[in-house]
Parts: sequence; structure tokens; C-alpha cells
Amino acid sequence: MIVMREVIGDQLRRLRQDQGRTLREVSGAAAVSLGYLSEVERGHKEASSELLAAICEALDVSLSDLLASVSTQLAQAELQHTAPTTRLPDMVTAEASAARSLS
Amino acid sequence: MIVMREVIGDQLRRLRQDQGRTLREVSGAAAVSLGYLSEVERGHKEASSELLAAICEALDVSLSDLLASVSTQLAQAELQHTAPTTRLPDMVTAEASAARSLS
Repeated sequence: MIVMREVIGDQLRRLRQDQGRTLREVSGAAAVSLGYLSEVERGHKEASSELLAAICEALDVSLSDLLASVSTQLAQAELQHTAPTTRLPDMVTAEASAARSLS
Repeated sequence: MIVMREVIGDQLRRLRQDQGRTLREVSGAAAVSLGYLSEVERGHKEASSELLAAICEALDVSLSDLLASVSTQLAQAELQHTAPTTRLPDMVTAEASAARSLS
């Protein structure tokens, strides 16, 4: 099963490491505990909407861009792990969101 | 502030209502309590990754598509909430505004 918080954690860690920043730096900027951020990055803890927003702000990435990237990762994992589900015509597809995902 | 769980809740409710289904039907299909689903839809409760996946499955929508849609909604909200606070050089000057002062 694909667990959303693990994909979110992977993306947050990748962003932080791409910026060459430590857990301590980002947790300080986001005003969350180092242990909490570490647990979130490892997919062990669900980030609340407020704390996820704070972490995104600390990483200078919009929440919408983070979720677009998470959506893309999930779509790839879904292709590998599950049969296709119905795709609603009026919903934005993961493909479309990939076009404006993190770059 | 834009709260992710409220955007997720809105999207889940819209999907359910578009399918003409009741809270009872979807909560039963997702094996979550009716009260929990109602709280999630209203943005009062954070859905855990596992329960969000179960709700998506009950609604026959992929988690990636849901998040893509949430990302799009958040991006629109971010644009509205980040109206410029600084005054750029090409904005109305004191002189110009004086010209349309009380007359």
C-alpha cells in the first residue's frame, strides 16, 4: 500500500537536502521540533496541515507545489502497485499537475 | 491562512455529492465512521494517510488525482492570499494619488 505521509516525507527531505540544509536549520525556521521534522521526513508521523504549511514556508516552497509533486510520485506508485481507478473527467490529472511540479 | 485539510474536505464532499451518495454510503464503503467522514469533509479533522486512502477508494478516485485537485485549489487560494504587500515602482505614486484626492 502507498502511504501518503511517506511520499510527503520523502519530498520534504529531498527538498531540504537539495538546499544543503540540516534538520536543525529547517526545524528552527519552521518552529517545529527537530524530532518532529525527522519523524515527518521518515513518514512515521502525519504532519498536521498547519505544521506542513510551516515546514513548506521554511523550505520556501508552496504547499500547492509540494502536493503537486506528491501527487506525481503517488501516480507513479499507483501505476506500479494498483489497477487503474476511474478517472473523473473534471478532475485535474496527475499528469497535468506534473507540468507545474517542483523544478 | 489556507488550511490543507479544509481543501481536502471540500474536494471529498464535492466528489461524494457529484456521485449522489450519502455520508452513510461512503463511510460504510470506506469502513470509517459517519461522524469521522463528516468531520473530515468539513475540514475539522485531519485524515490519516490510511483513512484518506480508504475514503478515496470508496469514492473510486485515486489518491494522486485527489491531491492533484487539492494542489490546484491551493494554488488558486495562494494566489489570492499573496496579494502584493510591497509597492512596486510602477504602482500608484503619492503624486498620482494626490491628483485624485478630494476635489
